[in-house]
Amino acid sequence: MRQGGGMNITLRQLAHFRAAARAGSISGAAEREHVSRSSIAAAIDDLERVLGLTLCIRTKAAGIELTQQGEEVLAQAADVLQRAGAIESLGRGDGPSGTVTVGCFPSLAPTVMAAAWATMAKRHPDVTLHVVSLGKDQIVDGVRTGQLDCGLAYNLQVHPELRTTAIYDTEMHAILSPDHPLAAHRVVEAGDLIDQPLILMDVSPSVEDTMAYFDACGLVPRVLTRTPNFEFIRSLVARGVGYSLFIQRPRNRMSYEGRPIVTRRLTPRPHRETATFAWRADREQSSAVRALQQVLLDAAPELAPFDSEDG
Amino acid sequence: MRQGGGMNITLRQLAHFRAAARAGSISGAAEREHVSRSSIAAAIDDLERVLGLTLCIRTKAAGIELTQQGEEVLAQAADVLQRAGAIESLGRGDGPSGTVTVGCFPSLAPTVMAAAWATMAKRHPDVTLHVVSLGKDQIVDGVRTGQLDCGLAYNLQVHPELRTTAIYDTEMHAILSPDHPLAAHRVVEAGDLIDQPLILMDVSPSVEDTMAYFDACGLVPRVLTRTPNFEFIRSLVARGVGYSLFIQRPRNRMSYEGRPIVTRRLTPRPHRETATFAWRADREQSSAVRALQQVLLDAAPELAPFDSEDG
Repeated sequence: MRQGGGMNITLRQLAHFRAAARAGSISGAAEREHVSRSSIAAAIDDLERVLGLTLCIRTKAAGIELTQQGEEVLAQAADVLQRAGAIESLGRGDGPSGTVTVGCFPSLAPTVMAAAWATMAKRHPDVTLHVVSLGKDQIVDGVRTGQLDCGLAYNLQVHPELRTTAIYDTEMHAILSPDHPLAAHRVVEAGDLIDQPLILMDVSPSVEDTMAYFDACGLVPRVLTRTPNFEFIRSLVARGVGYSLFIQRPRNRMSYEGRPIVTRRLTPRPHRETATFAWRADREQSSAVRALQQVLLDAAPELAPFDSEDG
Repeated sequence: MRQGGGMNITLRQLAHFRAAARAGSISGAAEREHVSRSSIAAAIDDLERVLGLTLCIRTKAAGIELTQQGEEVLAQAADVLQRAGAIESLGRGDGPSGTVTVGCFPSLAPTVMAAAWATMAKRHPDVTLHVVSLGKDQIVDGVRTGQLDCGLAYNLQVHPELRTTAIYDTEMHAILSPDHPLAAHRVVEAGDLIDQPLILMDVSPSVEDTMAYFDACGLVPRVLTRTPNFEFIRSLVARGVGYSLFIQRPRNRMSYEGRPIVTRRLTPRPHRETATFAWRADREQSSAVRALQQVLLDAAPELAPFDSEDG
């Protein structure tokens, strides 16, 4: 029975429910929230009882899966928790705090997010970052549904459900062994690549971007093999097995085996790619998300893989 | 109606069916086999008609999924095709040929498989390698079901369904920033690590191995965060965010950002880990798989991350 004017759900229940939804399991949420598994399970039970809704289904591998109603409650819970967090920050009169769950495209994690992490730890010690390595489509979905607070990937600016900030612009380029005949050129012609074996970056949208680039040139590349393993490609390229087209260029120009890799611009020039920070269009950024965005923007000049001087 | 003594299925049908099963789609198989999609589809249709079995279900995303009967036919088809390939090699009197589909643990792809690939291309140009980056359990399953011809991962020798060769032995070690206080020690004590933030390698079985190591020491580490992204961990460690425990040690001792990472042995000594090459226990190796195994064994002294001289 509802009490007049009183609230029957608690922020703690919402936070535990959100943690379980994000972790995909009771035990994962307990680990992340530093509470017992029974606390998480009890919070979800209480929330379901108070709301009269089934929020999630427990699956065989001790995981949980949200129901449609659970998805809806999650989206609203994220909003409530963020606003409550903002009130707490006001009350303390201190800087941003809380956990930020950020989806990050795999090749941007070591090259961009690690730097941001180190700066966040110094500048905003009360913010806990939780970085999830995900493909672009999963990041878009995650931000939309509230599973992620924000995301970092290429070209998220084209999604109307997201609000975005450009971190830096870059473009697709060829990577080659320094012994490769085409490495002698400062700029590589797409037409000269098509007889060479291509090692295709098999992550969406990299594979589509690469094929679309050749297609726009009226060319069909010779695909030797494909793999989603960024560093496997770099090692094969460094060994002279083939070339690849990458968007990201690590500052370290050696493969794991210590063999050099060179980077060459392409002609015709590929489209511009934008490393983009995104959050949900219909929601204000929390102070912690805003802090992360500022750290990324501050680091951008240092992190951009190409500058204007660069061949 | 069967003709007396005649065969109603063809090796080509079996090869196309196997390609589709491995690629997970008609179009993927067509791309890999360099034939049209209709050739692949027709081969599967013919095979199903001749055998009177439903081998696969076409799924919504233009993919295919094997039925139980399809799985059984696949296992036998792989055997027939391999023996037929061996006969062809005998007939030509030449070296190994054909496609080898090898499942490879992610951190072994850039550090070990790239070197093997380059040597295979020189020594056995008629063998086409197809490397799939997979977790250990997926490799074991893939080799068992015939989806993979062979696999490379740690400690596959404990699986009775697989026959194996040890490529090299190594052991888990700590990675640290050179500025980390514990980096001053030649060997790091597990007990000194537990107050330090751990960045946990979130790939099975790495996460279980790491926790089991501390558990055996009667210790509970302080997990700062977890990610399956090997290079993200290296970048965070190089930035001094925390330490991690790795089995694999790339020869290149810099993160993608060009920051140094140091490697330290642990005390108590962790269990030995064995980089293992595996194939199905109930099947002879094809000459191409045997050739790959020999290339890995030849390269082992150079590839092993630690030698006896090494701190």
